[in-house]
Amino acid sequence: MQSDIEIAQEAELKPISEIAEAAGLQQSDIEPYGFDKAKIKFDHLTNRPMKGKLILVTSINPTPAGEGKSTVTVGLADALNAGEKSAMVALREPSLGPVMGMKGGATGGGYAQVVPMADINLHFTGDFHALTAAHDLLAATLDNSIYQGNVLKIDPRRVIWKRALDINDRALRHVTIGLGGPTSGVPREDGFDITVASELMAILTLSTDLMDLKARIKRIVVAYTYDKEPVTVDDLGVAGALTVLLKDAVKPNLVQTLAHTPAIIHGGPFANIAQGTNSILATQTALRLADYVLTEAGFGADLGGEKFLDVKVPRLGKHPDAIVVVATVRALKHTGGQALADLQNENLDALEKGLANLGQNLKAMQSYGVPVLVSVNRFTSDTEAEIKLIQDFVAKQGSQAFLTEVWAKGGAGATELAEAVQDAVEEKSTFTKLYEDDDDLMVKINKIVKKIYGGRQAVLADKAQKQLAEFKQRGWDKLPVIMAKTQYSLTDDPKRLGAPKDFDIHIREFIPKLGAGFIVAMTGKVLTMPGLPKVPAATKIDIDENGQITGLF
Amino acid sequence: MQSDIEIAQEAELKPISEIAEAAGLQQSDIEPYGFDKAKIKFDHLTNRPMKGKLILVTSINPTPAGEGKSTVTVGLADALNAGEKSAMVALREPSLGPVMGMKGGATGGGYAQVVPMADINLHFTGDFHALTAAHDLLAATLDNSIYQGNVLKIDPRRVIWKRALDINDRALRHVTIGLGGPTSGVPREDGFDITVASELMAILTLSTDLMDLKARIKRIVVAYTYDKEPVTVDDLGVAGALTVLLKDAVKPNLVQTLAHTPAIIHGGPFANIAQGTNSILATQTALRLADYVLTEAGFGADLGGEKFLDVKVPRLGKHPDAIVVVATVRALKHTGGQALADLQNENLDALEKGLANLGQNLKAMQSYGVPVLVSVNRFTSDTEAEIKLIQDFVAKQGSQAFLTEVWAKGGAGATELAEAVQDAVEEKSTFTKLYEDDDDLMVKINKIVKKIYGGRQAVLADKAQKQLAEFKQRGWDKLPVIMAKTQYSLTDDPKRLGAPKDFDIHIREFIPKLGAGFIVAMTGKVLTMPGLPKVPAATKIDIDENGQITGLF
Repeated sequence: MQSDIEIAQEAELKPISEIAEAAGLQQSDIEPYGFDKAKIKFDHLTNRPMKGKLILVTSINPTPAGEGKSTVTVGLADALNAGEKSAMVALREPSLGPVMGMKGGATGGGYAQVVPMADINLHFTGDFHALTAAHDLLAATLDNSIYQGNVLKIDPRRVIWKRALDINDRALRHVTIGLGGPTSGVPREDGFDITVASELMAILTLSTDLMDLKARIKRIVVAYTYDKEPVTVDDLGVAGALTVLLKDAVKPNLVQTLAHTPAIIHGGPFANIAQGTNSILATQTALRLADYVLTEAGFGADLGGEKFLDVKVPRLGKHPDAIVVVATVRALKHTGGQALADLQNENLDALEKGLANLGQNLKAMQSYGVPVLVSVNRFTSDTEAEIKLIQDFVAKQGSQAFLTEVWAKGGAGATELAEAVQDAVEEKSTFTKLYEDDDDLMVKINKIVKKIYGGRQAVLADKAQKQLAEFKQRGWDKLPVIMAKTQYSLTDDPKRLGAPKDFDIHIREFIPKLGAGFIVAMTGKVLTMPGLPKVPAATKIDIDENGQITGLF
Repeated sequence: MQSDIEIAQEAELKPISEIAEAAGLQQSDIEPYGFDKAKIKFDHLTNRPMKGKLILVTSINPTPAGEGKSTVTVGLADALNAGEKSAMVALREPSLGPVMGMKGGATGGGYAQVVPMADINLHFTGDFHALTAAHDLLAATLDNSIYQGNVLKIDPRRVIWKRALDINDRALRHVTIGLGGPTSGVPREDGFDITVASELMAILTLSTDLMDLKARIKRIVVAYTYDKEPVTVDDLGVAGALTVLLKDAVKPNLVQTLAHTPAIIHGGPFANIAQGTNSILATQTALRLADYVLTEAGFGADLGGEKFLDVKVPRLGKHPDAIVVVATVRALKHTGGQALADLQNENLDALEKGLANLGQNLKAMQSYGVPVLVSVNRFTSDTEAEIKLIQDFVAKQGSQAFLTEVWAKGGAGATELAEAVQDAVEEKSTFTKLYEDDDDLMVKINKIVKKIYGGRQAVLADKAQKQLAEFKQRGWDKLPVIMAKTQYSLTDDPKRLGAPKDFDIHIREFIPKLGAGFIVAMTGKVLTMPGLPKVPAATKIDIDENGQITGLF
């Protein structure tokens, strides 16, 4: 069997100018980055209506067995684009850290990939590097302000803006900086996050234009004074410089799938401490160009799905016309209790138990009032009985499950699902918000806990309780909420698989992200700087004298 | 008077495809990065001969009064390109850190600039970001190796591979990492260098192809074991991944001057702890394409000039056909003792004293056996008497001084110098090496001290003495030497201006850079991570809703 990169390298890519033309773009609308990548000048397109039908691809709670959400998104787009109408993909960009660490790339798989696979997984068009540079320039100006007389009265013990690198590096999680004597800064505790966890990433992907980007950057709270008053980027006076550093990163990137379907790959915020979806500008651009726009959200429906619908949709100005929830027999059996090593064996009991998780995620998505379909992403070990069990279960929940074989067959492996999606998006439906913008923070959170997770209520730790009072005073208590919760469970305990009932969600603290414009509710420890495994993926990667890359997956 | 960025923004740039064609490149030889930037696929060109005449632009010891070396290089190229033969510029890339700090950009000035000025000074084609990513991936895998059982027996107190960011951030000079308990690494002292100080930058700019790059990366010494044996990148097994990260960064970048002269801007190593010149591949590529190739080296003739001639030339396979030493009346008066605030007033005494510095640098360059000319980069305050004094002095030294006014007039301000250069490169000359490859390290160093600096000898501190013995044992004692010395003086004391006599150069320690393939001789403290000034340049930079940038200079 060929590896993803082998399949990607054998593909004959079309010049990006041709892809742009097929997508309805003028040559003056794009800035080519090499033969097969381009930036889209989105401001040229704002007079076009968002005519496309939007299809959100999400999934059950992820498991180590894998679901293939990106792969289904790409395969489904290829299937839809093969018909008379046009389709486009709008995905997130992969982060370099995990590519060199353990996870590998994030460009789909098999015959359902976006290409050039290696470039997209490496530096791509430099968006993440621009974010890293902007993030660390902000940190440097902050420490410089403390060092050069501290006129803003920043309390070095209350700096919340850490530093960032797009790398997996556990040794940088907790550091002390400013050592080495009086000419090398003021000593204080600090740490590094991976770039995708930067608030600038959340901001870049929520901004609707360059000036919105700048306005949001100005509002970022980076520290507190000795009097516990917030210090913002505006106070430091570098919002202009940071926006300049992001002037190209804010433009969506155009590439193609293996079947030459135009694909916009742009932005990649975490789905726990941020909204977990690609950029507003990318999705808007795709909606102006294609009849069908396929997009996905990070982790499962409870995390990325909810955030897409509650946080992104109001700013996007468009709700999905259909939602696809991806599941696999293997993942459902794993969440139902079957060990990873046994997943190739039929186990209807485990599957039945695991289906409860699909059930809750399906119900959560259905509550938004748009058609929801299920994609069962097929593996060779799946038995007929197992597939039938899923299909019957889904039918009972008022939806339909379709087999997809996109890894092996590309778009041809998703024709049935594509037809169902085409019908679904034409159905008359009314998008129903989970909460209103001016609901209080706790009202919002409790609606998410009940309707999305199937839980009882949110319980606040003392610190969170105190913060809530402070937010009310500062006028931050009506902002959208971002739930930072384990992706593995509907609860806040990663070990509770399936669909638990009668549980509480424990909120330890809130993190206000005023630039992004939301409040993060922390339900547990979220690792914002991953580590490398014993044998990092980087040790397998090589390149030969012809520039042929091996070991990237 | 218009600022550099205003002049640059008003310029009408030609599409990079046209510039490439004018330079003799096929469209298949380039990878466009937007409208006005491209990467050159150098491996397509290796069958072409290096037909061009090479002109090295260097200067007196730099002063705060400014010399305008890049500006002369660009203006002279424009002047030469205006004639029947073709000319190209081959310069270094600016570093983002100083752009946001104090120094501003490094793309020439006035009407002698390379453009797009803002892009080149910001992310350009991402080369420095790729270097940062590769540098820090290496650091992460090193700490991960210590954390995951330390099979290489790395002594955490003897790690010499620091981390890097392309930023001015004094608070990161000295840090402790790996804090926060047993799951977050092993605590140790560490620090960050600015990316241009990374050995990877020196390597990228000395490599002759992708496999040479990989071979050099393998040889980098990153740490020592508990038994004091060197640990290399090869031992960590990530040379392939690092090379993959640099696969595009190694390709030279094509842009243009305001007069549409093709310009290759590539690489930017420090001229104190590294060779201080643009890449071998960039210069080779330019020599294959143009009749005249104008290049420069960092700091003055004693630092960048010497390194260009002794370290770069043997690997480039081509020596300069002429050398231009840039000076200004103001800088010479400053080095002759006149205060910065008084430089607009005529002062023949100070000038006379300052000319000694020009004299030594001129003599040093003349010792290589190729024609040397002097460019007096004119300011409005310069008097006729001052100019005459310089011209007479230079004539007595067997050279000729030409007035240039490239800031105000572009190429038209360098026609006389251009004519002289055209004649000079046709002169019969014999390039004379300062030292032989197999000279001992101390023989090399003492030749530099005597012939280039005009000093007496090098004196080694105890540590350096000990290292010398160790290098002999390891077989490192025949490598080229990189003198890390203050740029402000011919001595190792930045306060001794002019051309001191009978001085010793004190070498505190050596730093072996086995990947780059040279030994750095440290004569004092070299700051490899700058700090931000009280009012960083970043606070002046802004962008409006049309994407117009202001405050970048």
